Amino acid sequence: MIILGIDPGSVVTGWGVVETRGANLRGIDAGALKLGRGALEERLVKLFDGLSGVIEEHTPDQVAVEDIFFAKYPNAALKLGHARGVALLVAARAGLSVAAYPPAVVKRTVAGRGRADKTQVAQLVAAILGWQTKKTHYPIDATDALAIAITHARAASALGAGLPTKGRRARKSRKAR
Amino acid sequence: MIILGIDPGSVVTGWGVVETRGANLRGIDAGALKLGRGALEERLVKLFDGLSGVIEEHTPDQVAVEDIFFAKYPNAALKLGHARGVALLVAARAGLSVAAYPPAVVKRTVAGRGRADKTQVAQLVAAILGWQTKKTHYPIDATDALAIAITHARAASALGAGLPTKGRRARKSRKAR
Repeated sequence: MIILGIDPGSVVTGWGVVETRGANLRGIDAGALKLGRGALEERLVKLFDGLSGVIEEHTPDQVAVEDIFFAKYPNAALKLGHARGVALLVAARAGLSVAAYPPAVVKRTVAGRGRADKTQVAQLVAAILGWQTKKTHYPIDATDALAIAITHARAASALGAGLPTKGRRARKSRKAR
Repeated sequence: MIILGIDPGSVVTGWGVVETRGANLRGIDAGALKLGRGALEERLVKLFDGLSGVIEEHTPDQVAVEDIFFAKYPNAALKLGHARGVALLVAARAGLSVAAYPPAVVKRTVAGRGRADKTQVAQLVAAILGWQTKKTHYPIDATDALAIAITHARAASALGAGLPTKGRRARKSRKAR
């Protein structure tokens, strides 16, 4: 099963593709779509085109994004919502189901706890995928997307085939709300 | 000039088309896209398809939406942002520029003041467009979209051809942020 993780942003959107084979996980590709400094609607077109290209190239079976909740910064939430909306749209137009996981669940899955900084997540993602950290040329913005894909892979394998989850509790995937 | 006003929502998205001829305004058509009760991403696909259809049918020259700011309800802002992002995307993909106006400016333009309820806005929009209120079969969700289109028409005629603005101060149209 090929899983595309997306970390939407209105300036940079990260994406990462992993493949599951039984309990094994393989990192396929990852990247960051830089949406430039134009008007928001122009950046959303770049996001739409960029993600459509990623889906066309990697033909994922499933898509996972972060669930987001904001207690502060409602205007940041609003702008992020624009990008996340376009990401969900692209996935759904390609006929793909979208699972969403809260950020704390993603961090707990890759780091074993709910708090970890970007660098730690990057190192742990590389370790999980069996990459030597120094050989990882993927931009840091792609790592969160890989972490989301890994989280979905763990949840899906735990739910689906009843495969061992290596001590991690299965977390039910949910539809993006 | 044909102007499409959009009032985005993740459950219902209103749209309204007006035409300007010099200082005259004519209402062309309006409607509400009901996005159903499915998963958010499915509703966004309906929004994308629906708005694409409206643009194809009415070939607007310009698009206007509301600017939104939220002090409260960040999760509502986030969901609304998803719908607004898709609306901006559809406009920009069609090569249309998008102007945005704060809700208070829209209300002041149609009602003469910053506060007016939906029914008042509906009646005033009908009056501005020369419709008899009882003959207006457009759903209430479409009226805000017409009000946004009217606001842009007023601003554009005041800015563009230097036509009389009937005592209203011209408000500069802004790119959607």
